Amino acid sequence: MPPRPRLPAWRLPARHLHASAWTKQPRTAAPPLSTSIAASLARAAGEEQAGRTELHGWIRSIRRQKNISFAVLSDGSQVGGVQVVLPKGLDDNLTVGCSASLQGQWVESRGKGQDKEFKVETVDFVGESDAETYPMPNTKQGIPLPVMRKNAHLRARKEGPAAVLRVRSEMNWAMANYLRREGFVRVEMPVITSSDCEGAGEVFRVVEAAPEAPAPASTAPASSPPPAESNASATDSSSTPPPPASPSRYLTVSTQLHLEAITSSLPRAYTLAPCFRAEKSDTARHLQEFTMLEAEVAFLDADAPTALDQVMTVAEETVRAIAAHVRAMPDTEAHFAKHSPGLVGRFDALLALERYPRISYTDVVALLQAHHARDPAAFAFAPTWGAGLQTEHERWLAEVHVQGPVFVTDYPTALKPFYMLPNSPSSSSASPSGAATAVGPTTACFDLLVPQLGELAGGSLREHRVTELERAMAAHGLDPRAYEWYLDLRRYGTTRHGGFGLGWERLVGLLTGEGNVRECTAFPRAAEGSRF
Amino acid sequence: MPPRPRLPAWRLPARHLHASAWTKQPRTAAPPLSTSIAASLARAAGEEQAGRTELHGWIRSIRRQKNISFAVLSDGSQVGGVQVVLPKGLDDNLTVGCSASLQGQWVESRGKGQDKEFKVETVDFVGESDAETYPMPNTKQGIPLPVMRKNAHLRARKEGPAAVLRVRSEMNWAMANYLRREGFVRVEMPVITSSDCEGAGEVFRVVEAAPEAPAPASTAPASSPPPAESNASATDSSSTPPPPASPSRYLTVSTQLHLEAITSSLPRAYTLAPCFRAEKSDTARHLQEFTMLEAEVAFLDADAPTALDQVMTVAEETVRAIAAHVRAMPDTEAHFAKHSPGLVGRFDALLALERYPRISYTDVVALLQAHHARDPAAFAFAPTWGAGLQTEHERWLAEVHVQGPVFVTDYPTALKPFYMLPNSPSSSSASPSGAATAVGPTTACFDLLVPQLGELAGGSLREHRVTELERAMAAHGLDPRAYEWYLDLRRYGTTRHGGFGLGWERLVGLLTGEGNVRECTAFPRAAEGSRF
Repeated sequence: MPPRPRLPAWRLPARHLHASAWTKQPRTAAPPLSTSIAASLARAAGEEQAGRTELHGWIRSIRRQKNISFAVLSDGSQVGGVQVVLPKGLDDNLTVGCSASLQGQWVESRGKGQDKEFKVETVDFVGESDAETYPMPNTKQGIPLPVMRKNAHLRARKEGPAAVLRVRSEMNWAMANYLRREGFVRVEMPVITSSDCEGAGEVFRVVEAAPEAPAPASTAPASSPPPAESNASATDSSSTPPPPASPSRYLTVSTQLHLEAITSSLPRAYTLAPCFRAEKSDTARHLQEFTMLEAEVAFLDADAPTALDQVMTVAEETVRAIAAHVRAMPDTEAHFAKHSPGLVGRFDALLALERYPRISYTDVVALLQAHHARDPAAFAFAPTWGAGLQTEHERWLAEVHVQGPVFVTDYPTALKPFYMLPNSPSSSSASPSGAATAVGPTTACFDLLVPQLGELAGGSLREHRVTELERAMAAHGLDPRAYEWYLDLRRYGTTRHGGFGLGWERLVGLLTGEGNVRECTAFPRAAEGSRF
Repeated sequence: MPPRPRLPAWRLPARHLHASAWTKQPRTAAPPLSTSIAASLARAAGEEQAGRTELHGWIRSIRRQKNISFAVLSDGSQVGGVQVVLPKGLDDNLTVGCSASLQGQWVESRGKGQDKEFKVETVDFVGESDAETYPMPNTKQGIPLPVMRKNAHLRARKEGPAAVLRVRSEMNWAMANYLRREGFVRVEMPVITSSDCEGAGEVFRVVEAAPEAPAPASTAPASSPPPAESNASATDSSSTPPPPASPSRYLTVSTQLHLEAITSSLPRAYTLAPCFRAEKSDTARHLQEFTMLEAEVAFLDADAPTALDQVMTVAEETVRAIAAHVRAMPDTEAHFAKHSPGLVGRFDALLALERYPRISYTDVVALLQAHHARDPAAFAFAPTWGAGLQTEHERWLAEVHVQGPVFVTDYPTALKPFYMLPNSPSSSSASPSGAATAVGPTTACFDLLVPQLGELAGGSLREHRVTELERAMAAHGLDPRAYEWYLDLRRYGTTRHGGFGLGWERLVGLLTGEGNVRECTAFPRAAEGSRF
């Protein structure tokens, strides 16, 4: 689905413009919002005589001399703050962390590092800040990570966290730009679901409760199946009261099953959605609440390896589009490249001309085994066909062997969830000659591995045949009554389809060099909890 | 914050392009995805000899004649399906609801209503559909709403629900376009929060539990306050185990408090986020899980009425930008305008040249009282200063009196939550002379009311002074320990700021004419529950 042809901007016929009764209301100019420091500076650079103007921001540092003070003011509109110069007296209320509205003029700077500085004439508003207790002081050694995390509500006062938020915002934009152009519809998916998707145990449950009283256990019986096909959810709400007992409700661990329903009508769909895992694992790559880009495509090629390649191509092109956009942001050169020495090289690998290589799991195990044989100290876990790849294996493959992003395809079926499409025994995956041979059944799936992180995204073809899907659900011990609607998608006009999920915080980390996902979202909730 | 200057697309220096080890991988062309019906049709319209091509989609209807069959095929890429013509024999497996891949050619149509029809030569893939049980049959009277809602996983096979999803996707795009241009940073906000924001009782609580076992009550003590300022959340996770007992966790009812933290560093921010209310109210305007656009702006004008006007202007311009974009979509003329007679007039009102009028609550009550005096049967509830506006009042104001969108400002303080900025007693709101006089204290806030719906959005200035905020929290019976971080925003560089929240499903309904929010999101969860 390429984009619909664009129409010229729609213009109201003149007769409509004054049709409504309230157009007699006098039209007054709307009050403009304040100007950012970045915009004010850009304007000043373009004009010889800029004249009096106003800046708003927070004081990052202040240096008092005998007759004059120098301060750095920042409003998050660019990487660095700007130097403001205050005559004696005007700086009385200014402290590190305070907010201020400063009137004055841009003048040529006599200092080094910037062309212009701002000469303050009056100070209008100060939101004070006790320099003794301010959690984000200006120190040479920087703020320790635990203090930054404890003060997530203030940490974007600092250059790095502010730049992460700007990059994350622009990533969202670049993603939407690319996928919309490719005909994908963006959908908001339910956070509360009636199924736990992958049958994994680590889910959050949702209960109704007054905030001041303990939740009575009876409000949410845990093990009753969702009322699939019952009349309760089918009758029109306006005629019947809500059912007396609610079924189990979970916070979604993946929107994939629901997204498959969308692509059963609109063949390309995606979402950027919050997902949840109640897992206790306390690593730099896991959050209990995280953001996932999930995309799904219907009407894939009849040949499974080609179809899987189509899905991988969407994943790859999405990553490339986002990476190219972030690479061009001023923040990348001006901040992140300075603090993360490998960052520019990683962008090079992400944006290289060649397609990301695709290597089968079976071939990867052979590569790992050969490396392990040469260097027994290379891995703590011996690579074995049938076992999951360890992070050390994934990182060796991406960082040492490939030195860039790489797709690993066709994992053993036993490792994968019920909804993935197994490869047919006859058609071994289309590996070049000389490839290793799988020792058991495999599935049409992939992981996208990248340096620094390991797994960035994962995807697969989906089992599109109802009988085989029911069999897979039984083999995984799932109650088909909880998935009636999901089976319906195969009963009524099934399609060969597939998709992928990409961890958004991990991509933020990859493109900024931040090593821990806790630094890649505004208010992280990980195993240790959150006070926000 | 206007947009940063755009750089030319970033190009890798040539030396980087072949630096990594894996560029030896042969570069092969990526397999293209399938072409949508809309794109195929557009291409066929442009060429005299289109040649053989392939369409994929679902059969909406089929009409069998002696030697030939006519079917309507749709893939959700445009409002209507297309007519496909099948010679006898090729149509054997086709039923309503099945999916099919059809090879053939576009030819001039002899029928009315479309220029081209698709002459099928071969049929490759059919995902069958039992016409007897297919929930979305082709009937003259249409599918009843309860059946549509029960089958939310299949309802976008129908023209209307598919168009709603397309419009909703484009609304997201238009919103992002406008707000990005105005310098707003897009953020993903936490869904699980430690505070219940407005102190309203109707919240969902989150507990950890294995899906097959009832949740032990001890895993989530309900009434312990969040560990604000405790060291547990401050210490680095890598050195300490998670705290033994988790504090209360709620599903967010509004991201506003957290968004205020963002604008304490980046003065303009917004989010399109899931929000939750465990309310039982079963109306056409309420969901338990809904989507909210929330935007927040710092460094507003020192004059409160002007500052409030700034916030209203952002809300108004956002609605206008989205409405203008949707108005230009083919779906509006081709589908929604046909099914919702008032729709075009509503677009006219939303897009009229004049700014949406601003009327104070006090003036509105006077208007309502005058109308009620003239027509005692007009309202079930007598309008009284100090009481909330009833839906009947809001709709009369927007639909009858103003006949378009209208801002109602400066509600009584007693009706509003703790975080809103009260108007100072001296400065009565800047009403024109002849306006009614408030009989009690008012707050610098607004609701945006629209025809058909009533309240579409609400916003306010925020209390930015720490002492006054603590006083307001005490007056509302809130424990300040749960809001330490929120108070910090006032302790360290506070700003005059404000923002608004807009119900996304309500805006979808307004722009499509759908009368119930259950039709405005893919998988609605309302008081009656959801099987998805």
